[in-house]
Amino acid sequence: MTTTVIENLNRIVTCAPPGVTGPLLRDNMAQLATLQGNLAVAVRKGRVLFVGPRDRLPGLDGRVERLDGRGLVLTPALIDCHTHPAFVASRADEFEQRLAGATYEQIAARGGGIVSSMKAVRESSDAALNAATRRNLGRLRDHGVAVAEGKSGYGLCLEHELRQLHAIRDAGDSLDMHTMRTCLAAHSFPPEYRGSDAKRAAYVAEVCNHILPAAAKGGLAQRADVFCEQGVFTVAESVTVAQAARKHGLGLTVHAEQLGLFGGAKVAAECGADSADHLEFADAATLAAMATAGTAAVLLPGSTYHLRMDQWANGRAMIDAGLCVALATDFNPGSSPIPNPCFIMNLAVLRCGLTPAQALAAFTRNAAHALRLDTAQWGLIAPGSRAAFALWDVDHERELAYYAGANLCAEVITCEGWRS
Amino acid sequence: MTTTVIENLNRIVTCAPPGVTGPLLRDNMAQLATLQGNLAVAVRKGRVLFVGPRDRLPGLDGRVERLDGRGLVLTPALIDCHTHPAFVASRADEFEQRLAGATYEQIAARGGGIVSSMKAVRESSDAALNAATRRNLGRLRDHGVAVAEGKSGYGLCLEHELRQLHAIRDAGDSLDMHTMRTCLAAHSFPPEYRGSDAKRAAYVAEVCNHILPAAAKGGLAQRADVFCEQGVFTVAESVTVAQAARKHGLGLTVHAEQLGLFGGAKVAAECGADSADHLEFADAATLAAMATAGTAAVLLPGSTYHLRMDQWANGRAMIDAGLCVALATDFNPGSSPIPNPCFIMNLAVLRCGLTPAQALAAFTRNAAHALRLDTAQWGLIAPGSRAAFALWDVDHERELAYYAGANLCAEVITCEGWRS
Repeated sequence: MTTTVIENLNRIVTCAPPGVTGPLLRDNMAQLATLQGNLAVAVRKGRVLFVGPRDRLPGLDGRVERLDGRGLVLTPALIDCHTHPAFVASRADEFEQRLAGATYEQIAARGGGIVSSMKAVRESSDAALNAATRRNLGRLRDHGVAVAEGKSGYGLCLEHELRQLHAIRDAGDSLDMHTMRTCLAAHSFPPEYRGSDAKRAAYVAEVCNHILPAAAKGGLAQRADVFCEQGVFTVAESVTVAQAARKHGLGLTVHAEQLGLFGGAKVAAECGADSADHLEFADAATLAAMATAGTAAVLLPGSTYHLRMDQWANGRAMIDAGLCVALATDFNPGSSPIPNPCFIMNLAVLRCGLTPAQALAAFTRNAAHALRLDTAQWGLIAPGSRAAFALWDVDHERELAYYAGANLCAEVITCEGWRS
Repeated sequence: MTTTVIENLNRIVTCAPPGVTGPLLRDNMAQLATLQGNLAVAVRKGRVLFVGPRDRLPGLDGRVERLDGRGLVLTPALIDCHTHPAFVASRADEFEQRLAGATYEQIAARGGGIVSSMKAVRESSDAALNAATRRNLGRLRDHGVAVAEGKSGYGLCLEHELRQLHAIRDAGDSLDMHTMRTCLAAHSFPPEYRGSDAKRAAYVAEVCNHILPAAAKGGLAQRADVFCEQGVFTVAESVTVAQAARKHGLGLTVHAEQLGLFGGAKVAAECGADSADHLEFADAATLAAMATAGTAAVLLPGSTYHLRMDQWANGRAMIDAGLCVALATDFNPGSSPIPNPCFIMNLAVLRCGLTPAQALAAFTRNAAHALRLDTAQWGLIAPGSRAAFALWDVDHERELAYYAGANLCAEVITCEGWRS
């Protein structure tokens, strides 16, 4: 039996304050439980055996593999709980048109936006879709991520939603990343279902009766998501989708309150969703409903930045309201082409009222909880936790949210057996 | 004689439109002169021999070293024409205090700001300063940079300004980066020279009569800079420093109009400076004076972003005024802790009115001109140009300014002899 020892670590952020179970709430969000000095971590069978001072490392039987931490800072590998990685091409061309003055409506009229990403997915070969998805998830891994939620939502029909979910699963396997797959067939209405109320209703029925059950089959997807927003899915349609997701045993999340206060987060709370995501326009009553329901708040300030919007999610108010606050990249080809969690942390501290410590908690232990991964095993470094780490070329973890827009991740370390 | 061939390139951005000499001005800023297909670049003795379709590569004598471009996009290595890399520690601790509500004045009163970085440099061993400077320049290289301007300015006395310049020179040598070194003794008044007009005058005299001549000796520094701004160096003091720089054969640049319209850019133009940098508050008359003088405009939107300021430099107006517009990271431990040029490009297109093509021109050929490097050799890929390249994991160069805050640089390639 092989034991892996990571040695020569100068600082470890465990995210495991003594006596705290579950996500990090309120004041606990600043309790990252750090160790400083000549430190080591030992791993066996994919689980942490020991974390602490090098000179207290217990005697180890069998073969020992030693990794050099180079005097750097170790954190749990980051968990990105909201991404759209199964895309074939960026929409940088549309971005150029917007910069030159084109409106979102004009670009949509030319076939741009989500429909453009949908066409690219539908027209791609399996090999091309798989390669692109692997490249996109690999970008996240390069920036410190080992656990990624990944959504479909550019297929918008049974065949291509399932192709996306397969691509995410296979890419995660090949990169040794743990993926949580979310069916987002309710991302937009595909062109063939637009133009009448009857067509809308038919697409919602298709999602609920065919796509979600097929996605749930065999655990291909573990979750479902719906884009509840003015001009996309109504509150009533979102409830229908949410109920179907529940019926088929899928976890639930909702894109909510990004462009206005529309009601999506209350749908999430009422339907027992794991999280409501975006929340730029969420009000106090919404936050209270989420707190009561135990629905986590996932903030996605990357899209606020990229779309040059003025309304930032009020993370501090959410923490004060007792919510489990997580952050995610929302990595996607159009509205948040940002595969770097540390840049999202920087936006969160500059614009959403989080502290650097809270921002890191929001990308580790709290992101695990937003995905309903067991916080005794995921998003922390403690005996029994999953052996996935990020090594950072910084002096202190507060610098992760400081060196804006840079990648200072030296390496993501995952040890055999950590995903199972 | 060895020839290096980079093969399997899918796209090359040469920044060398036919018939254009000097920097890229006005409409030429969009003329990046790209090649697409199965491409190759051949290099001998540190200079480009050939760039074009693989099947037109001429027969090569002697030993041939082949590098695999992996089907990626090749650009000239980026040129970062304004950085402060000789710092020992970030000021992320002060950033946390600011996020918690402390004002800049309160932090300065506690010994924060530039004085804090000065203390760290003065108290550091040579080994520590050299290692930190190498780490900081290495961060730039990791993000696509092979040519970096580097300023002193955290020594603020003869001994420690020279230590910084030596550290930058040595770090560049060890990383195979070309550095242009700038003495910024006129960055701030050190504590021992504060409190009276006589002390101020004495520090200006010390800079002009001792520090600048010593920095210029033997080419340790090639340039001088002065921070001309309300509360720092007055217009008259800046002119004195500028004239001393000229007298000692140093190139000149000026930190100007960052916090208000104060007159620094006109000082730059009147003293024949290579560039004026920042320019958030520059007005039309200032731009006209710079255009007449041939003074380049270096935009540093990283600090605008990090300091949460509302006034962005109007790059589009500068291009329209016929200026050579360059971009730089301003990488420093306090106001722009941003070692990623692509994030700066993203800010420039979102906030300063540049197009993605203009942003890339501003980090290559135009940055060369801002440093008065010969644009026939630096910041482009053409026969006779310096063999320094950046390889990018993107589909099109417009994506460099698109994937915000990420590092998609696969590799910086420099070939033996390229710096000499």
